[in-house]
Amino acid sequence: MDVRALVFDVFGTLVDWRSGVAREVRRLLPGRIDPFALADDWRGRYMPALDRVRTGERPWAPLDALHRASLDELLAEHGLADVDEPTRAELTLAWHRLDPWPDVVAGLTRLRSRFVLAPLSNGNVALAVDLARHAGLPWDAVLGAELVEHYKPDPEVYDSAPRLLGVEPGQVLMVAAHVTDLAAARGRGLRTAYVHRPAESGGVRTPPATDPDADLSVVSLTELADRLGC
Amino acid sequence: MDVRALVFDVFGTLVDWRSGVAREVRRLLPGRIDPFALADDWRGRYMPALDRVRTGERPWAPLDALHRASLDELLAEHGLADVDEPTRAELTLAWHRLDPWPDVVAGLTRLRSRFVLAPLSNGNVALAVDLARHAGLPWDAVLGAELVEHYKPDPEVYDSAPRLLGVEPGQVLMVAAHVTDLAAARGRGLRTAYVHRPAESGGVRTPPATDPDADLSVVSLTELADRLGC
Repeated sequence: MDVRALVFDVFGTLVDWRSGVAREVRRLLPGRIDPFALADDWRGRYMPALDRVRTGERPWAPLDALHRASLDELLAEHGLADVDEPTRAELTLAWHRLDPWPDVVAGLTRLRSRFVLAPLSNGNVALAVDLARHAGLPWDAVLGAELVEHYKPDPEVYDSAPRLLGVEPGQVLMVAAHVTDLAAARGRGLRTAYVHRPAESGGVRTPPATDPDADLSVVSLTELADRLGC
Repeated sequence: MDVRALVFDVFGTLVDWRSGVAREVRRLLPGRIDPFALADDWRGRYMPALDRVRTGERPWAPLDALHRASLDELLAEHGLADVDEPTRAELTLAWHRLDPWPDVVAGLTRLRSRFVLAPLSNGNVALAVDLARHAGLPWDAVLGAELVEHYKPDPEVYDSAPRLLGVEPGQVLMVAAHVTDLAAARGRGLRTAYVHRPAESGGVRTPPATDPDADLSVVSLTELADRLGC
């Protein structure tokens, strides 16, 4: 492989959204709801919300706005309609303050010695910037859905990475813990690396140990650095 | 001022394009042309090239492509039509390998402790990434002309900074060594800081010592860090 740049899915692949969101729910709505149940419900509304934008049912909106709309829905459904506006705004920022998996900062730091690194996430730029500052993610640039106003797995998102980084599609390696993301990336000519993150869903779903269609399957970003000779 | 993010002009404000380009000309075309004369001629074609895109005379093209087209013109005019393709490609990358002014890395590092930092340059993303890796510029994100396919001083470029960083226009401070860039930024509601860079043109032009219309005028990014309490 002649790889020049690595682009990364973020939620679940690099950061532990479930624990992070639950922590903020516990802090901001103490004793009012099971924090993990709220995190799971909130995340469960993620793909349907993206799909409404992807199908044109809803005009483009950055992920912060979709997260907020989903939160308003689920608070109403869980009998929490009295939660005030500042608390809702603060809760939405939970997605900006997620912690990385233990291997991530060490792995990215090694990978950056040889490759250009960028997130290629459905998160908006402000969210990606806050996450990187919170978690210490050493990005060279912030790419992703908002720059092209399309959500993954729309092809526009994957195509934007080689175009903006000035390389060929086959010189970009997409790294993700979700096989559907990698399949869509391969469909646009990118190389792919699968990361096994069994803890992402807290046991609700069991991801495959490897992705046989990916160029590489690893259990951590430090293993990815090993495999890529960094 | 309630500033959250600082965005920077790059060529001349952060990096010394004239010495850097001349160094690469000396290396790649030894003895064939005065390196500073070529650097000045190349930069002289910059604004007219941008204007052809801004007026619609030429469709959108990233700055690397405009630099390459200008180089081809000037080599022809200087009797250097025999310069081969790999050398032309390598010369165009001179703009990716410019050195920062001596205060830049120290100043940005201090400023980043309190503010989100991003370039807001006419350079394309790949160019900005290479420059940051070469010069050690600690960006949180890479913004600029290519993301909106408009060149400064078109308003779309300035408007993209608060939009993508998720803040109000008045919470963004544009930092530049060129008063026209700052005037256009103010026209879109951004705060402005002028940096005096008398060495940019090698004495060809004399920039004003201060910009009375800017919120701040400084002689270095370390002075800017002082003034902003970093």
